[in-house]
Amino acid sequence: MEYIPGLAGVPAKHSKISDIDGEKGVLYYRGYSIEDIAENSTFDETCFLLFNGELPNKNQLTEFKKNISKGREVHPDILAMMSHLPNNASPMHVLQMSIALLSEFFPALTEQAEGQYSLEQQHSAAITIISQIATLAAAWERTYNNSLQGFSVTDKDYAANFLYMLNGNEDPYMIETLDKCLILHAEHTINASTFTAMVTASTLANPCSVITAAIASLSGPLHGGANRAVVSMIEDIGSPANVEKYIDSRLKNKEVIWGMGHREYKTKDPRAKILEKMLIKLLGQEKTSSIELETAKKVEEVCEARLGEKGIYPNVDFYSGILYKEMGIRPELFTPIFAVSRTAGWLAHYIEQLQNNKIFRPTQIYDGASPRKYVSMEQR
Amino acid sequence: MEYIPGLAGVPAKHSKISDIDGEKGVLYYRGYSIEDIAENSTFDETCFLLFNGELPNKNQLTEFKKNISKGREVHPDILAMMSHLPNNASPMHVLQMSIALLSEFFPALTEQAEGQYSLEQQHSAAITIISQIATLAAAWERTYNNSLQGFSVTDKDYAANFLYMLNGNEDPYMIETLDKCLILHAEHTINASTFTAMVTASTLANPCSVITAAIASLSGPLHGGANRAVVSMIEDIGSPANVEKYIDSRLKNKEVIWGMGHREYKTKDPRAKILEKMLIKLLGQEKTSSIELETAKKVEEVCEARLGEKGIYPNVDFYSGILYKEMGIRPELFTPIFAVSRTAGWLAHYIEQLQNNKIFRPTQIYDGASPRKYVSMEQR
Repeated sequence: MEYIPGLAGVPAKHSKISDIDGEKGVLYYRGYSIEDIAENSTFDETCFLLFNGELPNKNQLTEFKKNISKGREVHPDILAMMSHLPNNASPMHVLQMSIALLSEFFPALTEQAEGQYSLEQQHSAAITIISQIATLAAAWERTYNNSLQGFSVTDKDYAANFLYMLNGNEDPYMIETLDKCLILHAEHTINASTFTAMVTASTLANPCSVITAAIASLSGPLHGGANRAVVSMIEDIGSPANVEKYIDSRLKNKEVIWGMGHREYKTKDPRAKILEKMLIKLLGQEKTSSIELETAKKVEEVCEARLGEKGIYPNVDFYSGILYKEMGIRPELFTPIFAVSRTAGWLAHYIEQLQNNKIFRPTQIYDGASPRKYVSMEQR
Repeated sequence: MEYIPGLAGVPAKHSKISDIDGEKGVLYYRGYSIEDIAENSTFDETCFLLFNGELPNKNQLTEFKKNISKGREVHPDILAMMSHLPNNASPMHVLQMSIALLSEFFPALTEQAEGQYSLEQQHSAAITIISQIATLAAAWERTYNNSLQGFSVTDKDYAANFLYMLNGNEDPYMIETLDKCLILHAEHTINASTFTAMVTASTLANPCSVITAAIASLSGPLHGGANRAVVSMIEDIGSPANVEKYIDSRLKNKEVIWGMGHREYKTKDPRAKILEKMLIKLLGQEKTSSIELETAKKVEEVCEARLGEKGIYPNVDFYSGILYKEMGIRPELFTPIFAVSRTAGWLAHYIEQLQNNKIFRPTQIYDGASPRKYVSMEQR
């Protein structure tokens, strides 16, 4: 069989979770367009939809939200462990460590004999993990900026609780913005981190190990780190007047234009459109202008002129970093927030993988040394 | 393109690291047969071979061993973190947490700008990680059994140091046995954990995240947990007289016979042959008989009669658990020792992946809900 780098276009699973129409620029979660979900739903409801396949009725949603909010407290031993970390520790590493250990502190997550979780246990584990990961990200942020005194969990909706845990902010528009950001990043078919989760799940590893592996994968700058890189790039450019020169120089040197282009879309990523609107609305709300937004729009315009016919348009990372920055969130948190959100999708794929599991074991094309005899040290 | 469950037979990379001749039952590391390596080499030298592609000359090996032994000390903050863990915490979870954090404590492992490690940095990181992982496994074992006072690192060869750190054992034959076990488990083409490492590396995640993800994947009972399952199975059976009845019942109920069969081999796994010899020699050395070995040999005999023509023979897991048990190692450590050893192979694949990297993004066959309109809560 032919070797295809990155397995591009090679089907790795049957899936019912999300779908992309790359030509039209539409992303669907369980059949619902991302525009519809971002407009009408909440992240709590989106998690239910991703895990279960259908939107919840009122009782189901009430029950789900109750379950998601009751397991939020950070375990004191995890907090104690965080206190030993260097202050500049990467939140993505802290998330890996704390999720990897989660089953040690939550008896319900304890490994079952031979890795056989029932469907009910899988759903219960998913709820515990999605509930805890926001707390863990916030607990580290509070440890980092030495504000653990103000740290507490609430029984608010997911985004409201997350923002409150992070920095005490209770502004309704900020909550709505974070809620939509979480919805937009929750799921996106088989990218590298989701694929990592699937491969790990296929060994019947416990769900905490599955999510740890996915976080590790997302931590790579080619994957989850791109929205930070966009902000750095926009700051480097400085103002709209410098855009053309900057972009042309990058293109000439075959350097990446961060936040531009996506293997799955031939048009503007639907999530980028929504994020751009949110950013404009947020800036309007605050009655401020933003040199970053102006610069970014100019980058988009110049890139469209230069790359539009190659189908290279803004992707989800292009506006999300700038938006987070305007929300007062430090760049080191961009990827962890992405991880919190994408945990919903990873867990949906974890559950789906176990319904019809086969361990992943692709093959290789060996092109190394031919069989040879061991040579003693004296003869080397 | 056709969907193949588990991507069985689908090439995921070009590789020069190891190769399997499944018909003849031969495993090669960089062209050298595993029999030759196990007979003549050490784990230290095997690591050099896997990372670099060639056996070291005397100066290279001296330098490599010096580098591998100088970074062995456990960081006091990691030890402090371990002290907060419940005593029964899974060593596989503790390894995930401590490797995920390693770059926070070893400045040389700090992430480079945009994830670009030079080849030299990749090799240096590989040495730090392979050096540390044995220490971390041993540090947790000492924390677990409350013997941290006796814990110290040495500048001995890898296996000797590892065994000494674990339990103070300095018996030459035990060291030799562990050394060979580490060699035999170091690398085995593209299995699930190695594939997890490749996918994670493809995002340019830092090498600690790559190894964390691989450990998470190995923790699954279908992958790294099988040698523990073999020991449980052999203990369940109890004696050779019960074997036939037990095996026939498992086969009738379509239950797994642990340690039997491997997708890549149509004959007895070459590693199982070496392990069986080592086990027999160890038992001879100790002048003891072993009901476990007698039972295992009977299982092998009955399975050969029932399954031999299907090409189902003992794999590496079949004798390794029994061997570790005879060495006085508790079953909870079997998979972590596997992880320590396989880290050599994972790191070789990490380095290889970055030489010609493309992010993994396979596709899916979507068979979920068709596009549908969002339904308001009242109408559900």
